[in-house]
Amino acid sequence: MLNYVHEIPTKLYFGEGQIRHLDEVLRPFGTRVLLTYGGGSIRKSGLYDTVMEILNKGGYTVTELSGIEPNPRIESVEKGVKLCKENNIDVILAVGGGSTIDCSKAIAAGVFYEGDDLWQMVATGHGVLKALPLVDILTLSATGSEYDGGGVITNLKTNEKIGNMYTFPAASICDPTYTFTVSKYQTAAGTADIMSHIFEGYFSRTEDSDLSDHIAEGVLKTAIKYLPVALENPEDYAARANLMAISSIACSGIPEYGKRGTGWPCHAIEHELSAYYDITHGVGLAILTPRWMRLILKKDPTCTWRFVRFAKNVWGLEGEDDNALALAGIEALEKFFKDSDIPMTLTELNIGEEHFEKMAAHANAGGYLKDSFVSMTNEDIVEILKACL
Amino acid sequence: MLNYVHEIPTKLYFGEGQIRHLDEVLRPFGTRVLLTYGGGSIRKSGLYDTVMEILNKGGYTVTELSGIEPNPRIESVEKGVKLCKENNIDVILAVGGGSTIDCSKAIAAGVFYEGDDLWQMVATGHGVLKALPLVDILTLSATGSEYDGGGVITNLKTNEKIGNMYTFPAASICDPTYTFTVSKYQTAAGTADIMSHIFEGYFSRTEDSDLSDHIAEGVLKTAIKYLPVALENPEDYAARANLMAISSIACSGIPEYGKRGTGWPCHAIEHELSAYYDITHGVGLAILTPRWMRLILKKDPTCTWRFVRFAKNVWGLEGEDDNALALAGIEALEKFFKDSDIPMTLTELNIGEEHFEKMAAHANAGGYLKDSFVSMTNEDIVEILKACL
Repeated sequence: MLNYVHEIPTKLYFGEGQIRHLDEVLRPFGTRVLLTYGGGSIRKSGLYDTVMEILNKGGYTVTELSGIEPNPRIESVEKGVKLCKENNIDVILAVGGGSTIDCSKAIAAGVFYEGDDLWQMVATGHGVLKALPLVDILTLSATGSEYDGGGVITNLKTNEKIGNMYTFPAASICDPTYTFTVSKYQTAAGTADIMSHIFEGYFSRTEDSDLSDHIAEGVLKTAIKYLPVALENPEDYAARANLMAISSIACSGIPEYGKRGTGWPCHAIEHELSAYYDITHGVGLAILTPRWMRLILKKDPTCTWRFVRFAKNVWGLEGEDDNALALAGIEALEKFFKDSDIPMTLTELNIGEEHFEKMAAHANAGGYLKDSFVSMTNEDIVEILKACL
Repeated sequence: MLNYVHEIPTKLYFGEGQIRHLDEVLRPFGTRVLLTYGGGSIRKSGLYDTVMEILNKGGYTVTELSGIEPNPRIESVEKGVKLCKENNIDVILAVGGGSTIDCSKAIAAGVFYEGDDLWQMVATGHGVLKALPLVDILTLSATGSEYDGGGVITNLKTNEKIGNMYTFPAASICDPTYTFTVSKYQTAAGTADIMSHIFEGYFSRTEDSDLSDHIAEGVLKTAIKYLPVALENPEDYAARANLMAISSIACSGIPEYGKRGTGWPCHAIEHELSAYYDITHGVGLAILTPRWMRLILKKDPTCTWRFVRFAKNVWGLEGEDDNALALAGIEALEKFFKDSDIPMTLTELNIGEEHFEKMAAHANAGGYLKDSFVSMTNEDIVEILKACL
């Protein structure tokens, strides 16, 4: 069990109706609010009106930044920073999913960035000194951005999608009913993202960090139980609530405490896909994960024990032959994603192999994935990507 | 799944050697330190010298409060408050287990208490307005006081042991090697305490708070795996580290998120035993728990499903007959405690039944345990206590 430091200052208000705390949460920071959101689904759902009513009643001055993209772009960060400076913003209120929150985190830090080119801050993490306070209202269970300090920003000009640490939300309002209107496609993709956050830490060489592993398996079992329920009945509160609860934990670092880092290989590769093709992050992860698993299992049989544990503890499978059991666990995962009706090949997303080598080289720059759970070469990454076609 | 608010501002430094962060943690609060500890085991272990070296090197002015009791008493709180006021203390540094940390929390809040009688603050929780910053170095895996805001203080004059909320530690240094010297008796009692914190929330009527239940079961399985290892080899790092990690989570509220409250029946009853007989808290809990379980299972068969889940998910038991399976799970728990070599009857602690009725009435004052997992009467509590003889 390795050393770790646990520090998550975010206050979570979890459950139906917790928006009643919004005014008390914002008030201490000031009254000039930058309200950030995405493509307008919060207008359709009525959440926008609810939020504005609270803000108007509370005497807040609201500046809006809307249209934040699903893979949020550096241009939106730049726009937000400009708005904050022009309007002397006191606090950012992000209403949306991980993209809106990620973008808002970069804006919150970008306000204090002293350089000329915000992309330099995003690409390197240098110059992140402090940040405006950020409060969010979560509308999608997926990235866990409501309970971590990181954000991922895309530059479509340079085909780069890069994650860095900016700031933790001061508070996150997590009301599962706000996800009742999330489409089946986004529900499934979000759950795949949650599960991937677990896989990235779970498949590690550390054997003795039991609590982390139990929490990881608990998150996976909860996802497996409740995604089909949410797909069947989008307004099932228990299903939406459980998916929201695991979203926050999965990317918090907690399921990895005490474990050796892995470099998060599937995320590294998926960021390339999103940077080149602007695809839904969770779908990219769902496509990649079983292929990555099969490749590393084949490449390094000393990792079989982890897959056996995964098959037994997560899927409840049994069997004498370890390799067969390991493969059955991967099979079960792939079937689970397929049954949730998201595309499970890159071909379905009209992605061909033309950029695979460049992507592999960028994902593995500096031998980044050499020390992963199973050491990965550029050739391995290309092989995984080809298996996804 | 019920609503909840998650807010734990404590920063945990987990792992061997994390004391290197002590100076950076204390520094922002000031240089006048109240150092609190218990009966002197930290002098024997050498930890006292290590701490003093860091404090002296850092130019801190140290006032000491030693001799804090295993069930910390109101007199120690009074002494500590007086020392803080006389010495203009900036920050309290508690080095020890839950008793020292609990007492230090009450001191931290007591400094700002405006009444005359500190016991009134402790007994009612009224008048807790703010608190001095508190940092702790944990030396016993048990109460979870390093990661919650509560403290339990005893008044032997009135035979009362009462828990209330005071303040969260700003930081906790959790180095498993500091528990290498903990006796077998205290190791087993501490683990029983950890497990009891889980039981108190796990046995609830809420069926759909899956993540909480999985975390609860993960804590229990970790305890069951590592207590025997730590008893066999007190310097097994993985065992000590896992017990320390689950100590912090178990009492944090996290394993109960989304679940209906139970009133923590075994703690309510055990506090009576400690208040009358000053026994080791974890031992009292280990004795009470299987008897409480058997009584409620007999009293209300509609709770059988929870015990079946416990038997299956925690102990890996199988069986067709639900009641037999439920009993087998309780049996397994009782055997586990017995095997860890702590007293498993009140008779062994020289406790007779003379105060049982008064204890039951106090534990259940105002019908406190009426809305527990299974509703409890004073007669039920007396029956449980008699079964412990």
